[in-house]
Amino acid sequence: MAKELTSRSENYSQWYNDLVVKADLAENSAVRGSMVIKPYGYAIWEKMQRILDDKFKETGHENAYFPLFIPKSFFSKEADHVEGFAKECAVVTHYRLKNDEKGGVVVDPEAKLEEELIVRPTSETIIWDTYRKWVQSYRDLPLLINQWANVVRWEMRTRLFLRTSEFLWQEGHTAHASRKEAVEEAETILKLYADFAENYMGMPVLQGVKSASERFAGAIETYCIEAMMQDGKALQAGTSHFLGQNFAKAFDVKYLTKENKLEYVWATSWGVSTRLIGALIMAHSDDNGLVLPPKLAPIQVVIVPIYRKDEQLEAITEKADEITKALRAKGISVKYDKRDTHKPGFKFAEWEMKGVPVRLAIGPRDLENGTVEVARRDTLEKDTLRMENLDEKIENLLEKIQDNIFQKALSFRESHTYKVDSWDEFKEKIEAGGFVWAHWDGTAKTEQKIKEETKATIRLIPTDGEKESGKCVYSGNPSERRVAFAKSY
Amino acid sequence: MAKELTSRSENYSQWYNDLVVKADLAENSAVRGSMVIKPYGYAIWEKMQRILDDKFKETGHENAYFPLFIPKSFFSKEADHVEGFAKECAVVTHYRLKNDEKGGVVVDPEAKLEEELIVRPTSETIIWDTYRKWVQSYRDLPLLINQWANVVRWEMRTRLFLRTSEFLWQEGHTAHASRKEAVEEAETILKLYADFAENYMGMPVLQGVKSASERFAGAIETYCIEAMMQDGKALQAGTSHFLGQNFAKAFDVKYLTKENKLEYVWATSWGVSTRLIGALIMAHSDDNGLVLPPKLAPIQVVIVPIYRKDEQLEAITEKADEITKALRAKGISVKYDKRDTHKPGFKFAEWEMKGVPVRLAIGPRDLENGTVEVARRDTLEKDTLRMENLDEKIENLLEKIQDNIFQKALSFRESHTYKVDSWDEFKEKIEAGGFVWAHWDGTAKTEQKIKEETKATIRLIPTDGEKESGKCVYSGNPSERRVAFAKSY
Repeated sequence: MAKELTSRSENYSQWYNDLVVKADLAENSAVRGSMVIKPYGYAIWEKMQRILDDKFKETGHENAYFPLFIPKSFFSKEADHVEGFAKECAVVTHYRLKNDEKGGVVVDPEAKLEEELIVRPTSETIIWDTYRKWVQSYRDLPLLINQWANVVRWEMRTRLFLRTSEFLWQEGHTAHASRKEAVEEAETILKLYADFAENYMGMPVLQGVKSASERFAGAIETYCIEAMMQDGKALQAGTSHFLGQNFAKAFDVKYLTKENKLEYVWATSWGVSTRLIGALIMAHSDDNGLVLPPKLAPIQVVIVPIYRKDEQLEAITEKADEITKALRAKGISVKYDKRDTHKPGFKFAEWEMKGVPVRLAIGPRDLENGTVEVARRDTLEKDTLRMENLDEKIENLLEKIQDNIFQKALSFRESHTYKVDSWDEFKEKIEAGGFVWAHWDGTAKTEQKIKEETKATIRLIPTDGEKESGKCVYSGNPSERRVAFAKSY
Repeated sequence: MAKELTSRSENYSQWYNDLVVKADLAENSAVRGSMVIKPYGYAIWEKMQRILDDKFKETGHENAYFPLFIPKSFFSKEADHVEGFAKECAVVTHYRLKNDEKGGVVVDPEAKLEEELIVRPTSETIIWDTYRKWVQSYRDLPLLINQWANVVRWEMRTRLFLRTSEFLWQEGHTAHASRKEAVEEAETILKLYADFAENYMGMPVLQGVKSASERFAGAIETYCIEAMMQDGKALQAGTSHFLGQNFAKAFDVKYLTKENKLEYVWATSWGVSTRLIGALIMAHSDDNGLVLPPKLAPIQVVIVPIYRKDEQLEAITEKADEITKALRAKGISVKYDKRDTHKPGFKFAEWEMKGVPVRLAIGPRDLENGTVEVARRDTLEKDTLRMENLDEKIENLLEKIQDNIFQKALSFRESHTYKVDSWDEFKEKIEAGGFVWAHWDGTAKTEQKIKEETKATIRLIPTDGEKESGKCVYSGNPSERRVAFAKSY
């Protein structure tokens, strides 16, 4: 362990790759593009799941489970969807293996499927095929359903958490009696995602909608939250789609209105994935390792004993157990690291690498003085605190850390946000990294040109911002509002 | 809705199929053999998951996630495993689709995988391939890891929950420094499963080990719990395998002992699946619908208002809200069903079908008298209770129902358990249904003959029972102990 991370300034990309492995979060598997999520990384995902799942349920959603496999023909039913998703997919063609002469196994050519099955890249098609049976009248609406699942999109260039062929996510799929209600649902979920990103992940996000070319395949409108990473690149952290009646029409899902008329149902879908763990890492961590916001840290406090003799350890352990009990009573997760196989310095570095928000160190002198050494992971500051009301002090400190992590990320974003009106400055700021707010003439052609010349894409078009007349930074044509450009993950 | 179930006596199998659909638990999907788990069914699974997950964590296990796909060659590495699992599998051969001339999609022949990928039927191979990297010394042991995942085993004849091509499960995979520790782990988990089955599912289970021919492919010993369904068939409800060093040898996983010697690691694996929902249904339900033990019921109490006029509803709703609040404060889940689209009789039948343990009905006269009508789902008994301390009364009633459901299932099993010494009686009892304890000569040949002639299999060999000398019920050869035979799911 110890500090063997590549530094961010030296090679940001390598820093990230090193960190994911050294903090024991995930690793590549024997299957190209598929990762193994290790227990420490999975514990972060479980925390995310629990918080999001509670929020989904509070807003009236229920969980269900739909099949992993989707008949190939389903993908051709929605014209835009087929373009976007029926491409880089895992295709199941056979359902049996048999032994060969050499003691191995081969695919049994007799067991070929009549119609190939696609491992779901997303589930709109199979779910809307099901909703046809579930929806008859307005009484059956709204359907507010979510599923936690694995999905597969064959990727040629993969990176742990950020882009893997298989990933874990949640996908919400809702059905409504009116356009208005469906749009409200998509917006409600966007706000829920933004709240999660900011108040739990400590990661400020911009909210808005995608340009037509960046929309989800089959959506009328794609709402998104966008975060800024420490290298000045944007990362899309969640999307919520208003799908109009596209899928209802493709899968013939109609309902009888109160007025006894048959109408197509309105739809939304929305999701966040294990990609959020990648975002969490890149938003806050430093050259010493992971920095985790307390609300998502699997271990919030680690206690390390400092001792030479076994009697000292015994006395320290007694005190550590007392502290542990008091902290746990406040719902704080604590680990007491009394491994005798490693020195304190090694342990300090290890827990720093793993991003534990608060470290307590207790030595014989602390016992004498009634004190404890407290180290903050976010600022790396140390302090000596008196034992009295330690649980409350730590509770306050964790809140302070949660807040500081957010404020730090917010300051970073603000110092990397630019309003730009000239093409030269646009190119310069995009190259340096950050969100560049600029006028755009609204055409896909200009958007494409800008992308080709700078690699920047429109991250979002604000929905709540004021209009401001101006000229497109690229074409000089008139524009009604600025949009946010950035290079992105 | 209403009582449209086929009765158990008329056609048990049809009763089950009807019930799964009418209680809104699951349905077949467009993909042959894959089910859709509907919100009400999934809510039961979520309850099961939460309870089991807590128990796994209390016993030191952590969750992780391993790839869905397994390279085909991995299956040939463990000789017994390949026989058992590399057969009816979903095989991924391609990774891309392309548009055809007719607006559809076809598999791109250019995008053929060099080595086919198998959709995991179980994950021993990919996990032990990973453990090779994780285990170097005794300090890395034990590894106590579980994953919640979907798996696929291609099935020709499927039934909702009981046998589907895709199902959800948890699979634990542990690595240990000694045979003793691994055996203890397998036994610990068996006890954990038995505790869950009996004290949460209300389903009494027998515990023991499988005969060699019924063992998991690659296991040295398969521990199992077996439950009795209402048609007298046994259902295997969970298995825990001691795998010896088989997978460590197949995937070359060695560790350095304290004495600095290289040794192969010892293994276990264990799992329960959504099949448990099928068991839960068949163990307790009746001709009116589902009967759920309170500890696994998504809704524990439903309140139905009985009224003619809107003013009456208002007054009842006030009281219902008060009761709801008091019950929720005790951690009891409550639904107040004030739909104005349905009559009370319809609602009663619907909640009976869905197995809600306790139904409260409140009418204007109840308000005057300070009473409420309480109906138990398990016994269908009704009672009128005074409102005072209603929360405590309901809490006690739920405990009583939980206990009664278990006792009823236990009585059923006891009245369908036989000690048999003659072949004629054996055939007769097996045909009638139940557990038949009989002597067996220990040979696979006899086991096979008995299966051919009666369809009965050895469900388990007890590990804690006393030995008893006797003669094999089929061959007459000497036997050391009785084993449990039954027809099974």
